[in-house]
Amino acid sequence: MTGTLYGVGLGPGDPELMSVRADRLVRGAKHIAFFRKAGRSGRARTIVEGMLRADAAEFAMEYPVTTEIPLSDPRYNDVLSCFYTECMDHLEALVRGGEDVVVLCEGDPFFYGSFMHVYERLKDKIPVQVVPAITGMSAAWTASGAPITWGDDILSTVMGTLNEQTLTKAIEAADALVIMKIGRNLPKVRRALDAACKADRAVLIEYASMDGETVRPLAEFDGETLPYFSIILVHGQGRRP
Amino acid sequence: MTGTLYGVGLGPGDPELMSVRADRLVRGAKHIAFFRKAGRSGRARTIVEGMLRADAAEFAMEYPVTTEIPLSDPRYNDVLSCFYTECMDHLEALVRGGEDVVVLCEGDPFFYGSFMHVYERLKDKIPVQVVPAITGMSAAWTASGAPITWGDDILSTVMGTLNEQTLTKAIEAADALVIMKIGRNLPKVRRALDAACKADRAVLIEYASMDGETVRPLAEFDGETLPYFSIILVHGQGRRP
Repeated sequence: MTGTLYGVGLGPGDPELMSVRADRLVRGAKHIAFFRKAGRSGRARTIVEGMLRADAAEFAMEYPVTTEIPLSDPRYNDVLSCFYTECMDHLEALVRGGEDVVVLCEGDPFFYGSFMHVYERLKDKIPVQVVPAITGMSAAWTASGAPITWGDDILSTVMGTLNEQTLTKAIEAADALVIMKIGRNLPKVRRALDAACKADRAVLIEYASMDGETVRPLAEFDGETLPYFSIILVHGQGRRP
Repeated sequence: MTGTLYGVGLGPGDPELMSVRADRLVRGAKHIAFFRKAGRSGRARTIVEGMLRADAAEFAMEYPVTTEIPLSDPRYNDVLSCFYTECMDHLEALVRGGEDVVVLCEGDPFFYGSFMHVYERLKDKIPVQVVPAITGMSAAWTASGAPITWGDDILSTVMGTLNEQTLTKAIEAADALVIMKIGRNLPKVRRALDAACKADRAVLIEYASMDGETVRPLAEFDGETLPYFSIILVHGQGRRP
């Protein structure tokens, strides 16, 4: 009588943009689990506020480190690995005990999501099902009021955390572009967009589909850093009958 | 008393993967419209079978041409433009008459979708709202049983309709890859994957999230052509704690 672990994508933030399946699983869940930064309510948990069963048991998996240790430090991976193992032991025990567990995932679980770390560790041990979702970038280009791609445009999704040369090359090569994980990398991202002659077409979207959603040309924002839920788009210009 | 035109993304095919908002709009619609090839039931319309109001008025927009005229022929764009104009006149009249109209869109409307042609023609004339959706590629990587991207992977989405050199270059440059619009371009796509030394990692997904969903290594498929709902993925290999 083993249960199932569900990795449920919640989409970009607006609860009405959850899939019908995700909505059903979240509302019916006896056990939910979610990642969050210590001391925060957690974005995934916030999205489902008001939707949970009164008797739902919640398991908050609090990251031991996020930006305090640089990515390049070997301790970064060590600390995270250990954290994941502890969390996974708990989830595995619940499911082996016959419980279904819903892991709440911002965005789409298999698209730059934290759930992949759960999945890789548990998929061969217990039944795991993944529910895809609307990505944050879909909400961003919808908010921008223009299609991201036309005809045969090549769309590339790049992270602001990449080094400047790689970033510039990728921005140059793409017809349509999504830049995520920007934060304090904004000055570098700006330089790369400039070098690729695409800065004038770049659009900044903050909090797509959420309260406080804003859309403006990147050129009209003169800050040095951006909140986590920010995406820069450069729309494709392909064939259009 | 003008109405609103809703471009409603239906997602990859499984009706349970529609968003809660899309589900609500489709079930409540008095007027629906959708594109389809003449003589076919139409994929978008098929997804919502059984969901519509008994008194819903349906407007099927039947493509006058799809693959009969080559893309390079100037008549291709002319014929399509004329077709779009006729359809748009009808939709505009309905909305100006005070009706809300739901345009059914496969996948996500602003991601390589036909709805962008509706949107560009009507957005400055009548109120238009777009509901994003789960993309076919999200359903494909979910079906594949592995995350498409890790860490800082660059993900590129490319069309099989591109010329071989462009295709090869884009495949080489990306860490993670989605190839769509394959069809009769499969031999060319194979050559490009071979040239970029990624053929052995390519996974073929047909009918993701739909009846008949299949997942297999591309190397195990020896046909020359693929159905429309086929996606080839090459998963990223980025940093994983």
